[in-house]
Amino acid sequence: MCLLCVQAQVLYDFTAEPGNNELTVKEGETITITNQNIGGGWVEAKNSKGEVGLVPEDYIEVRAIGCVAYYFVATNATVAQPTDSALLQASNGNDPWSVWNADATGNAADSWAAKPEGTETAKAASNWNSSAQGHFQAYQGPGAADDEEWDDEWDDVKPGGYTESEAGEGGPVNRAGAHGPSMKIALNKFPGFSKSGPELYLLAKLPPKGKDKIPVYMGEVGPVWLYPETQLDCVVADPKKGSKMYGLKSYIEYQITPSTTNRPVNHRYKHFDWLYERLLEKYGSAVPIPSLPDKQVTGRFEEEFIKMRMERLQGWMTRMCRHPIISNSEVFQLFLTYKDEKDWKMGKRKAEKDETVGVMIFSTIEPEAPDLDPIEVEQKCEQFSRFTRAMDDGVKDLLTVGQEHWKRCTGPLPKEYQRIGKAFQNLSSVFTSSGYQGEATLTDALTAAGKTYEEIATMVAEQPRKDLHFLMETNNEYKGLLGCFPDTIGVHKAAIEKYKEGDKLVAAGKITPQEKTTMAKRVSTMSYALQAEMNHFHSNRIYDYNRVMQLYLEQQVAFYETIAEKLKQAHARFTTM
Amino acid sequence: MCLLCVQAQVLYDFTAEPGNNELTVKEGETITITNQNIGGGWVEAKNSKGEVGLVPEDYIEVRAIGCVAYYFVATNATVAQPTDSALLQASNGNDPWSVWNADATGNAADSWAAKPEGTETAKAASNWNSSAQGHFQAYQGPGAADDEEWDDEWDDVKPGGYTESEAGEGGPVNRAGAHGPSMKIALNKFPGFSKSGPELYLLAKLPPKGKDKIPVYMGEVGPVWLYPETQLDCVVADPKKGSKMYGLKSYIEYQITPSTTNRPVNHRYKHFDWLYERLLEKYGSAVPIPSLPDKQVTGRFEEEFIKMRMERLQGWMTRMCRHPIISNSEVFQLFLTYKDEKDWKMGKRKAEKDETVGVMIFSTIEPEAPDLDPIEVEQKCEQFSRFTRAMDDGVKDLLTVGQEHWKRCTGPLPKEYQRIGKAFQNLSSVFTSSGYQGEATLTDALTAAGKTYEEIATMVAEQPRKDLHFLMETNNEYKGLLGCFPDTIGVHKAAIEKYKEGDKLVAAGKITPQEKTTMAKRVSTMSYALQAEMNHFHSNRIYDYNRVMQLYLEQQVAFYETIAEKLKQAHARFTTM
Repeated sequence: MCLLCVQAQVLYDFTAEPGNNELTVKEGETITITNQNIGGGWVEAKNSKGEVGLVPEDYIEVRAIGCVAYYFVATNATVAQPTDSALLQASNGNDPWSVWNADATGNAADSWAAKPEGTETAKAASNWNSSAQGHFQAYQGPGAADDEEWDDEWDDVKPGGYTESEAGEGGPVNRAGAHGPSMKIALNKFPGFSKSGPELYLLAKLPPKGKDKIPVYMGEVGPVWLYPETQLDCVVADPKKGSKMYGLKSYIEYQITPSTTNRPVNHRYKHFDWLYERLLEKYGSAVPIPSLPDKQVTGRFEEEFIKMRMERLQGWMTRMCRHPIISNSEVFQLFLTYKDEKDWKMGKRKAEKDETVGVMIFSTIEPEAPDLDPIEVEQKCEQFSRFTRAMDDGVKDLLTVGQEHWKRCTGPLPKEYQRIGKAFQNLSSVFTSSGYQGEATLTDALTAAGKTYEEIATMVAEQPRKDLHFLMETNNEYKGLLGCFPDTIGVHKAAIEKYKEGDKLVAAGKITPQEKTTMAKRVSTMSYALQAEMNHFHSNRIYDYNRVMQLYLEQQVAFYETIAEKLKQAHARFTTM
Repeated sequence: MCLLCVQAQVLYDFTAEPGNNELTVKEGETITITNQNIGGGWVEAKNSKGEVGLVPEDYIEVRAIGCVAYYFVATNATVAQPTDSALLQASNGNDPWSVWNADATGNAADSWAAKPEGTETAKAASNWNSSAQGHFQAYQGPGAADDEEWDDEWDDVKPGGYTESEAGEGGPVNRAGAHGPSMKIALNKFPGFSKSGPELYLLAKLPPKGKDKIPVYMGEVGPVWLYPETQLDCVVADPKKGSKMYGLKSYIEYQITPSTTNRPVNHRYKHFDWLYERLLEKYGSAVPIPSLPDKQVTGRFEEEFIKMRMERLQGWMTRMCRHPIISNSEVFQLFLTYKDEKDWKMGKRKAEKDETVGVMIFSTIEPEAPDLDPIEVEQKCEQFSRFTRAMDDGVKDLLTVGQEHWKRCTGPLPKEYQRIGKAFQNLSSVFTSSGYQGEATLTDALTAAGKTYEEIATMVAEQPRKDLHFLMETNNEYKGLLGCFPDTIGVHKAAIEKYKEGDKLVAAGKITPQEKTTMAKRVSTMSYALQAEMNHFHSNRIYDYNRVMQLYLEQQVAFYETIAEKLKQAHARFTTM
């Protein structure tokens, strides 16, 4: 057997459609891949009898003989099945919300529930840890390992997580767990807190603040970050497919062009993931870093999947660009403006060695305002906790409602309008058979009315992509962002608890009274950071929601106006002489 | 026990709501009615313990001690249950289509299926009979007897046949069979055909045509009836409740005002029913006489029921007025213009003695055109049969689709819009709690948008009454009318078959060659009548469908325009500064 000969095991029964060059295969059967580059979710394969034909890529598990890579195509097998209705296809192909929602009622919700407010440090810290662990497990695919190569493939290869929608498509049931965006904590890379709690910062002997210092100013709305004069922006575009290992492994490379240099750089998803890890490690205690768009982004077809992921990577990058601390950070600038491979590698190495991570980020923060009373610090923290939790509920509620509405708009509702349209046309064609003179005065109009309702059916089915989509995307982004707050706020709560133990610790001789004063000062610094971050969050939120509601309602108005106009034209054709 | 003391048996368990003066009763329990005149579907009753309270009228079966009448309130027990949502109430209260539709897929459909086209006389006649019998059974309530007094009560008392809609209301399940409009044949009152077939007319020695002759002219579209110069019209209005037997029996009297005299006359439903029987008896072979609006017209509340029945009686009367033969008939004129009780009773007696009924009606028809070839007669008859059957299918299809749409519009759809509205408002109230300056620029707009979607929910739920209702009513009327055609056309087919046996009958010496010629002539007369009737049907149909589609689309346009306008206003409140 040659080194490039690829064998695969069949995961699910697949029956060939006659005349389509397909190959019938049975679960458990071993086949040989003869052509990997068919595209559209298909591979050419040969069975043990020597018959050759196309097999859906998702129905098989490939092993490359002669190489160590274990090529796991996807855990979810869904493949384009021919449907008799274009409408159906349009409606089921792009309902990513079933996946988000499963998460909304599942793991992310638990992360809030597991976090009681205002308990003692140890408990809070342990909760935080278990929650972080929960996150980590929740957002990995089933059987996910910490193997970079595997991860690499998992990310880049192809769409998988299509969940069956209400309308009921064929194909095996989704076997993947629910995935959703939230803060993914790499525990072993987060020394600032998970190992020793906030006291690392609260009691540390701090180095003098260098050029990295992060000021907090008092603005009109309270403490605010320092905002750059011009806001950084970037465009994620032009996804290109690359491959390696004799075409067995393929990946997508995106082009990112920052507004500052206007010079594009290329990055694969795994680079975004690396950036995310760095940002989380360094800023996660002070700034909620939303997860990257879920690896399991849904989409029936590869093209749709790539488009959807790109759209979400754009959203993620835009949010990072808008953040004054993140956008100004060395690692983020590296990502956007590295000059060449060497530059990138050196920058990577440097970033990975950065020691001002975890709670130590607070050591760089410099509030230009008097210290806050710890009681006020605690109250603020509680308030933010309540707010973000309430907003999390509200956003999830909207997502659930939106998802149901999406299903209705793309499923039963257009089918009903189609049936109304058909019923009118059907009646019209019966009338045409009457042989009665002057019948056309009714039948032409009735046929046109029927066609109008069929057009409305199509409009209804396509509308969610035009409006609900953006409302859902925005809320989904906020759900991801809000999912980070329990962790971020947890750091602050733990620090406050630690400070409150101060007197006891002084009495026990574990810290000096001076150290207790330092702790108060540093808790105040942390609070300024949290307040600045909350104000940043609020101002972005108000802008984002205003904008998305404008967009949504604009499209809704256009939708209803178009329907009214179409019906008006249909109406004008009828006559009672 | 006094003569007026009324006992009743409890049909279903009923649990009193606290504070509502209600009385808890158990199935099978005997209670005494203490006040029959509570209204709103309630009676006051006393149980064996002497406790007094209100009980839903529909939950009990009343017996009047001291009188022979068997007072059966209703077989269906549904009573107004308090619901927590006004929307729900609005949506479930008026969905009459579940009842119609059950019929559409049931009995009426069978009546077509049981009627093969162009078979021999005996078979056709027997089919016609069994079909008529089928109709008779299908449109009587369960356990219905041919007892005039009972019938009387059944008709007039109160609503019953509310069928559970998708949204699922409380209350016992509908126990009645499906009822629907169609031709109800009283076999023993229809001597013209059921006893002896069309030969009664085909071979009869006819009396000279009197003043009752019905001419058929050749118009532009073919044979047509003679239309009056001004079309008769009438208004059915002002339903008044009357009662007899010490208030135990109540009925509704309607006021009917014909456009000719402009003098109102009063009639109870049973009088309409009497008129219907007369028209069916006399004209049923030549003119499809649609059934009266179903006795079991639905409606949750007495008021709604009366309104619905009146609306349908109006529709039935309008259709009769529009028919040149019916509107000009003595019995119809009697109904509309009787001067006093004596006049009415004399006219009734005369009409009941009329002998020109059944197929004999054709003896009064005088086509002013040359005799038709029997082959052409048969072809025309087949064509009408095909058309009416196809239209019946089309109409039923539209009714089924319309019913589903009605359910969606009054059930899940408004609930969804309500949930969207609530989700926006909910998020807005969370935002209000942020304490962030300038929050109102978002929250006011978001609350308004939420309220707009709640308004849309109400609009969606109320819309079917404004447009779909009329589309359904018209189609339902046509379904009733079309349900009469198998019988009417069956008479013609039987006559054609009888004529085709002519040669055999002559050979067997059963009829003379002269009689065979007479048969051909009379079959031609029948065909002219059928063609005139079909042309009448077509011209009315074209007008009716044009009109109802105009009305439907007009309301639909207004509906979508209003929504667009509301959303436009909601949109204007958002700002991205």
